[in-house]
Amino acid sequence: MERFLTGDHISQEFNSELGGLRRQLLAMGGMVEQQISDALKALRDGDSALAEKLDASDQEINRIEIALDEAGSHILARRQPAASDLRLILAILKASTDLERAGDEASKIGRLFLLMPVQDRDPANFHELIRLGEAARGLLHGALDAFARVDANAAVSILREDYRIDRDYESFIRQSITYMMEDPRTIRRVFSCISIGRSMERIGDHAKNLCEYVVYLASGKDVRHVRLDEIEELVGPRAG
Amino acid sequence: MERFLTGDHISQEFNSELGGLRRQLLAMGGMVEQQISDALKALRDGDSALAEKLDASDQEINRIEIALDEAGSHILARRQPAASDLRLILAILKASTDLERAGDEASKIGRLFLLMPVQDRDPANFHELIRLGEAARGLLHGALDAFARVDANAAVSILREDYRIDRDYESFIRQSITYMMEDPRTIRRVFSCISIGRSMERIGDHAKNLCEYVVYLASGKDVRHVRLDEIEELVGPRAG
Repeated sequence: MERFLTGDHISQEFNSELGGLRRQLLAMGGMVEQQISDALKALRDGDSALAEKLDASDQEINRIEIALDEAGSHILARRQPAASDLRLILAILKASTDLERAGDEASKIGRLFLLMPVQDRDPANFHELIRLGEAARGLLHGALDAFARVDANAAVSILREDYRIDRDYESFIRQSITYMMEDPRTIRRVFSCISIGRSMERIGDHAKNLCEYVVYLASGKDVRHVRLDEIEELVGPRAG
Repeated sequence: MERFLTGDHISQEFNSELGGLRRQLLAMGGMVEQQISDALKALRDGDSALAEKLDASDQEINRIEIALDEAGSHILARRQPAASDLRLILAILKASTDLERAGDEASKIGRLFLLMPVQDRDPANFHELIRLGEAARGLLHGALDAFARVDANAAVSILREDYRIDRDYESFIRQSITYMMEDPRTIRRVFSCISIGRSMERIGDHAKNLCEYVVYLASGKDVRHVRLDEIEELVGPRAG
């Protein structure tokens, strides 16, 4: 059929397919953000029912990942995407994996919370963790926003913030080890908190990966494994 | 130029490009395996110099990942790969990310080892860890082998083994927590060992992802998030 369509018609269809793929990814991102918010709310309110729901929504996110990948490879197979269109599809395929794994970490937070004895689920124990988690959620939100606008400058700012979260996470770990040593009765609880903190740090890492794809989309340069100052140079001075 | 070539010539060139990409991925896999072996050897022999070298080889692996991705998207842009060829390229692009991250975990093991005080680097402390690490390396080796032969049955066997490693890892964690509680002076050291163990478990996870791509290559079905018994059913009874 398609070969009989005019070039314009084909390109219109193609654009609408690409737009659909992009929207699907951003919708998936929204779900993952919600998933993280719910995990944080479960900690903050000691809400076990909410924590239990996380696994179900994780499965929904998994389904979307598969559907997105299928749609993406379908477009690759039927169209012959050129430079920036091809980049967009490849970036979406990679981004969907990161979003899915960020969602996984959110449900893992729920599971770790539910594995803690009820008396340990006191929201007072999660103060520092919630701060870490909010920062990670903020990064992911910013990364999705930068992706939606293909804004390399915004992406670079988020990469810079991720370094800060990593530092905060490390100081959280050091502090936790000190707690355990000072009061060995806290070992089990603090260890659970460390595991939750690690999931949050990993969410930040996935947000960082998304930002690298944004720079790739905007500049065509693959900046994974490139130092932040070099990326900043590549992207150029921040406007405004 | 290419449009003037005969179809046969184009397809020959294309096949050789695909073959090259596949070889590059397997070579990258070999380097990651070596990286893991070196990390384990550093633990086993208390070899700090070897542990220090891991970061340099990690950078080499990173470069190969970028080159592989570039070559893959180049082929996508210039050829119009059909069903199974497209699947192969997409699987290679995803596999390279997993291999790179498995390599990252190996160098993280080196860094964690070097962060331990010298008196804690006694190989006797790493007995259980080395067993875990060997198992993870074995999974990765098997996964690469299954990838090379596009052998879905072999891939499924490895998926099954990964479950066993996850179980061993969990019992290692439980045991470690018990150690810390029994003798709080070990907290710092045992915590480092737990972090190393986690990296090993993650290497196993990346091997598992590779196996899922092998099933995708062989059957066209995306089996991420699919239960193992369903995958086994899909792949069919094991020959022999």
